[in-house]
Amino acid sequence: MTSSNANPSTNKDLGVQGYAVPSEVPTHWYNVMADLPEAVPPHLNPGTREPIKPEELEPLFAKALIAQEFSTERYIEIPAPVREIYSQWRPSPLIRAARLEQRLGTKARLYFKYEGVSPAGSHKPNSAVAQAYYNAIEGTTKLTTETGAGQWGASLAMACALFDLECEVYQVRSSFDAKPYRRMQMETYGASCYSSPSDRTESGRKMRVDFPDTSGSLGMAISEAIEVAVKDPNAHYSLGSVLNHVVIHQSVIGQEAIEQLKAAGEKGADIVFGCAGGGSNLGGLSAPFLGQNLREGTKTRLVAVEPAACPSITQGEYRYDFGDTSNTTPLLKMYTLGTDFVPDPIHAGGLRYHGMAPILSHAINLGLMEAIALPQDQTFAAGIEFARAEGIIPAPESTHAIAGALDYIKSGQAQDGEVIVIGLSGNGNLDLPAYAQTLSE
Amino acid sequence: MTSSNANPSTNKDLGVQGYAVPSEVPTHWYNVMADLPEAVPPHLNPGTREPIKPEELEPLFAKALIAQEFSTERYIEIPAPVREIYSQWRPSPLIRAARLEQRLGTKARLYFKYEGVSPAGSHKPNSAVAQAYYNAIEGTTKLTTETGAGQWGASLAMACALFDLECEVYQVRSSFDAKPYRRMQMETYGASCYSSPSDRTESGRKMRVDFPDTSGSLGMAISEAIEVAVKDPNAHYSLGSVLNHVVIHQSVIGQEAIEQLKAAGEKGADIVFGCAGGGSNLGGLSAPFLGQNLREGTKTRLVAVEPAACPSITQGEYRYDFGDTSNTTPLLKMYTLGTDFVPDPIHAGGLRYHGMAPILSHAINLGLMEAIALPQDQTFAAGIEFARAEGIIPAPESTHAIAGALDYIKSGQAQDGEVIVIGLSGNGNLDLPAYAQTLSE
Repeated sequence: MTSSNANPSTNKDLGVQGYAVPSEVPTHWYNVMADLPEAVPPHLNPGTREPIKPEELEPLFAKALIAQEFSTERYIEIPAPVREIYSQWRPSPLIRAARLEQRLGTKARLYFKYEGVSPAGSHKPNSAVAQAYYNAIEGTTKLTTETGAGQWGASLAMACALFDLECEVYQVRSSFDAKPYRRMQMETYGASCYSSPSDRTESGRKMRVDFPDTSGSLGMAISEAIEVAVKDPNAHYSLGSVLNHVVIHQSVIGQEAIEQLKAAGEKGADIVFGCAGGGSNLGGLSAPFLGQNLREGTKTRLVAVEPAACPSITQGEYRYDFGDTSNTTPLLKMYTLGTDFVPDPIHAGGLRYHGMAPILSHAINLGLMEAIALPQDQTFAAGIEFARAEGIIPAPESTHAIAGALDYIKSGQAQDGEVIVIGLSGNGNLDLPAYAQTLSE
Repeated sequence: MTSSNANPSTNKDLGVQGYAVPSEVPTHWYNVMADLPEAVPPHLNPGTREPIKPEELEPLFAKALIAQEFSTERYIEIPAPVREIYSQWRPSPLIRAARLEQRLGTKARLYFKYEGVSPAGSHKPNSAVAQAYYNAIEGTTKLTTETGAGQWGASLAMACALFDLECEVYQVRSSFDAKPYRRMQMETYGASCYSSPSDRTESGRKMRVDFPDTSGSLGMAISEAIEVAVKDPNAHYSLGSVLNHVVIHQSVIGQEAIEQLKAAGEKGADIVFGCAGGGSNLGGLSAPFLGQNLREGTKTRLVAVEPAACPSITQGEYRYDFGDTSNTTPLLKMYTLGTDFVPDPIHAGGLRYHGMAPILSHAINLGLMEAIALPQDQTFAAGIEFARAEGIIPAPESTHAIAGALDYIKSGQAQDGEVIVIGLSGNGNLDLPAYAQTLSE
């Protein structure tokens, strides 16, 4: 399907067509479901345990997004208005970390794909803009969502401002308290932001009674955002990770990286490190490389780096589980720590999710991707080393990918001339208190 | 002069030469002093009131920077290691504000030149990297500086990290208190940051006695940073604005904008709005357009937009004055409100300077540039309007340039088809409390 098929009559109205979009901005999203050797296990209706039908998702999502959730088409056209907005910061830079290489004394060639140049400072707008767009053309006037670190909430708030949608965000309590700038960012874009669990929803009130001292979790915040969306006929819900359509939107990252490596004279990547939360950045970067492995026989190693405090892949089970705490979502086949798992309030709030995207869980289960878990002190040390060599202070989430690559190099696993790619999902400029705390310890 | 003439033997050692620098990254800085119809009045020795000699500045600055301060060469080669670092975020994007145009209902074509994609989030690294580089190759091991909003301090901290220099920053008290994230940013890069006036210097201690309740000023912080540099034989001082060499470094902004407008199919800019503090962003954006006006007869209008709370151009006098409160700098011929002027602690800390760069003051005095002053409520309203249309939350400083352009359009002065360029000097992601305060009022 393409978006222009979805609603050809209204597409043009939302595009501002201000200027030609450079050819380096991808024209299509890539869907790895077309290339996987076995189909991704379907999402299930929790009542019947039968594969969920597209129409059952319509209270939550725009039709075009549901179609993408089920699509096995390899390429999905990016609507012109979305591509126009992408072009403000895409292609995002692929940067040779030459000074870091020099300080490490490695002869491997280290690159990072940097999503922090987006207005919200992370990769999240890649899906937020697409989701806001499809909802706007289908007549939704309000989106609700959850946010962990605040990057997704800020990105959806931004996207809703661009498409004149109302936006209501439930931010995980520990992040809401620790990262007040994120709420201010959302409010500047015109969104509302609430600490979750809140007293605005039945599920929130129940969680506040059951777990009065909870630091919150993405699972809880999802329950609240879904509840609000389902009760409002003009509202839809929006998820920033985990689901297939989100991973598809994020594929611009990996597609660009492949082209940029070519332009830099590299044959390809030998190993790619991505941080693993719900899977949006990891999948966006990795899936196009995985597709290349599957179609062209390249042998790029794909490594998910997750926090030791929330090790859904390395310590979780691969089974059907809910996406939220109140068990209102479809059942998703994924690596999971269980919906009741509440990780420690680590700085990398975006990685505090109990599960992993079904697409990536499937790929990992098939042995097509690897995973490691690293502790926070190691990831922040790597983040500071990176900042002082390359000038960019990484998001706490991104420090996981950096730490994975640095560990690989420092432990002598990297070969001379090897090409290593780090997924730098965002900058840490709104996470500076986490760095300040690390430096003071 | 070129930097490679300054120290050909050591240049290569500091470059990491990781990858080819794209041809779109300028190869030379542009020096508008070569094209002005009359020479910029020289800086004076305050004792003799004679033009200051280069060697008199050597306790403060690297020799290569002093040579640039006096240079009338039109183009100065950018050293390879500096250009390599620039290429991480340069050319910075020139973006058509098509959605804002649509919301305004204007048929003018509105562009913004966005410097917020740099690691520090503003244009300041353009000069910080150059200054750290020249100091490093000349053997300096420590730089001291002042910072207002924190953008310059963070940028110099970053540049010092890249070139392994120690960095000591005096941050204006009102900003230090209001913007704690900036200090954390500097410290993450490994720098030290102190509230000014501090008790670490004679000048600071004197100011604390004379003005115990002061909110601080750039002039005071400059005095402290200079005092520390002068007393330490291994240290130099670094200034983020005002001086000729800083305006020269920032010329990459305007040079790129001219090329990018061409690439977008425009004949040129009709009018350019830049925010006016000490003149670094304003000069960097405007000077190449001014040079074009002078050499090629184009008629681009250049408008400096300053805060009503610190109106150095529109309310100040054009005369010789000191750059700092303790009157330790050379005398600079500039528009000034007097060194004792302490502006209200407005959010745009980067615009709280009593004077204006001598190069730009001279151009304004010759009638080659214009200036207006706008109040904070108007600039923040423009900033919020911009954020919700274009997705980028502007730095408080940058909101002045936006407000100038919006006022021009809304008051009906913009003609159909006119090309308007806004200098978006940085993003406001570390200034979100200022937006939160504005929204709550």
